[in-house]
Amino acid sequence: MLAVHLEKGRVELTEQPLPRVPKGFARIRLLNAGICSTDLELQRGYYGFSGTPGHEFVGEVTEAEDASWIGKRVAGEINLACGKCEWCARDLGRHCPNRTVLGIVKHPGAFREFLTLPVVNLHPIPAALSNDQAVFIEPVAAACEILDQVKLVAGTPVALLGDGKLGLLIAQVLQAHGARVHLFGRHKEKMKLVEREGITAETIGKSLPERAYSLVVDATGSAEGLRSAIDMCEPRGKVVMKSTVHGLVQIDTAPAIVNEITLIGSRCGRFQPAMRMLVSGKVRVDSLISERFPLDRASEGFARAATKGVLKVLLTAPDRDAR
Amino acid sequence: MLAVHLEKGRVELTEQPLPRVPKGFARIRLLNAGICSTDLELQRGYYGFSGTPGHEFVGEVTEAEDASWIGKRVAGEINLACGKCEWCARDLGRHCPNRTVLGIVKHPGAFREFLTLPVVNLHPIPAALSNDQAVFIEPVAAACEILDQVKLVAGTPVALLGDGKLGLLIAQVLQAHGARVHLFGRHKEKMKLVEREGITAETIGKSLPERAYSLVVDATGSAEGLRSAIDMCEPRGKVVMKSTVHGLVQIDTAPAIVNEITLIGSRCGRFQPAMRMLVSGKVRVDSLISERFPLDRASEGFARAATKGVLKVLLTAPDRDAR
Repeated sequence: MLAVHLEKGRVELTEQPLPRVPKGFARIRLLNAGICSTDLELQRGYYGFSGTPGHEFVGEVTEAEDASWIGKRVAGEINLACGKCEWCARDLGRHCPNRTVLGIVKHPGAFREFLTLPVVNLHPIPAALSNDQAVFIEPVAAACEILDQVKLVAGTPVALLGDGKLGLLIAQVLQAHGARVHLFGRHKEKMKLVEREGITAETIGKSLPERAYSLVVDATGSAEGLRSAIDMCEPRGKVVMKSTVHGLVQIDTAPAIVNEITLIGSRCGRFQPAMRMLVSGKVRVDSLISERFPLDRASEGFARAATKGVLKVLLTAPDRDAR
Repeated sequence: MLAVHLEKGRVELTEQPLPRVPKGFARIRLLNAGICSTDLELQRGYYGFSGTPGHEFVGEVTEAEDASWIGKRVAGEINLACGKCEWCARDLGRHCPNRTVLGIVKHPGAFREFLTLPVVNLHPIPAALSNDQAVFIEPVAAACEILDQVKLVAGTPVALLGDGKLGLLIAQVLQAHGARVHLFGRHKEKMKLVEREGITAETIGKSLPERAYSLVVDATGSAEGLRSAIDMCEPRGKVVMKSTVHGLVQIDTAPAIVNEITLIGSRCGRFQPAMRMLVSGKVRVDSLISERFPLDRASEGFARAATKGVLKVLLTAPDRDAR
């Protein structure tokens, strides 16, 4: 089968045997996958990564012990937990210290014709969701994670910094949950995609409002984003950190301490609320897809995804007849 | 009257007229004051400070509209709030954007024979507290602030980084509230002062336990302190930031985000719980006093307070007969 292999920044194609299916696992035929900013960071050397990336996907189960899974269209949670430690016992497998992570840490990812995941990680996809939409379950779950961490008070203005892929999903998720989202971004055409949802969008200017929001979400992917977020947050307010920045970040902690601001690290989220958001149409993702490439043109897909202004690039199952 | 004046790092003595007493204010004769790390930072140029520092004090009211205050021994909250803004309406005068701060921001401090503060800032001091002990109400309140921000679960191990003045108070406050404090410091003789309270003390070695505590308090006053605190915190845990570091701090935000750690800025606290802690004897401060100097030897006091290994230095009312 065809698999993408990332090595020292190069996106290569390899021919591999079908992955074996350990007990409790399923084999899944890839339908669609999404290239995420994390994949681009892996390409840049984040986590010293080498292997098959990809963790946003929709596929069809082709093998599983429990035959009822076979033929099901599924998305999959990306953290493969040990199931035995205290974190797993507390239902926090996403923080299991022994975990591997699909396409990120020690478990080959979804950018291949067939992948494997534990059956407990799988979620059957509601018929109402297209394959394109289903690829967004994982990133929408990451956006929904904020709802599990912060109590949103209806009508409260929330500042959101960053109009990238994740930012645009967060904007919709928070707005759907009653917040009044003020999106601060750099790309008018991107912000326009969610402005119709009633979200106020503003181009980041020289000065940003200071001490103005009880909740600020930084999804800029930059170190300046966090600094701005702290400045924009009012005393006793909260800043959600959604930007994974590679390397050290310089921040002035004094305003965070003087104003007693709470900074909350935020990562993966639960799939169920994300699927509900997508099925209800409260989060709309179709316009966020910039382009699609078959798996055997993954290298072009990566290059495209890294281009300024481009949003989600999908990798699709290779056309078997065309190969 | 005699007043300390800080200018470009120099501690000078000046002779000043008695401060006038605006409506709603009291004039207070200084009994005892404490030199805090913030005062040393002001000396180093923090906040571009120039004027009379000092915000930890006990004094006797000599003038006030309401005569019942006169003769009372008092401590005073250091934030002078406007009383009119939304923050004041929410009883958060400590975060009033229009506030001045005793001895720190635009209100002359306590290192003078007579100071002034609004009567609403004053707290009569229980007879059980000596003048020496009463000086610690303000820093103990800052330690108690953590209790208002974080729910302590009895028996939970809490890592505390830093065995300075504030660290030793925080250790006692948290221990008294049921936490099992593990104090990580650099000075065996300092840590010994609180070890008798049942607190485990450990010298900071090359490696610190990682992912080990659900609550970590950084009171090191250093940038490395925050970095270590994040590493020591377990996933979904909390790091309380008690170190005001002057300038930019380099931190790796990735572990905070991946492990979804919450970083909480923490500053001044309420005086009532602090007085209760001191009266009950649950926080003992007598052994934390390293030395005392009369106000007219403030310069020596500052030099002593800045000496490695020295804990609290008190400035006392000048001996009038001796001058």
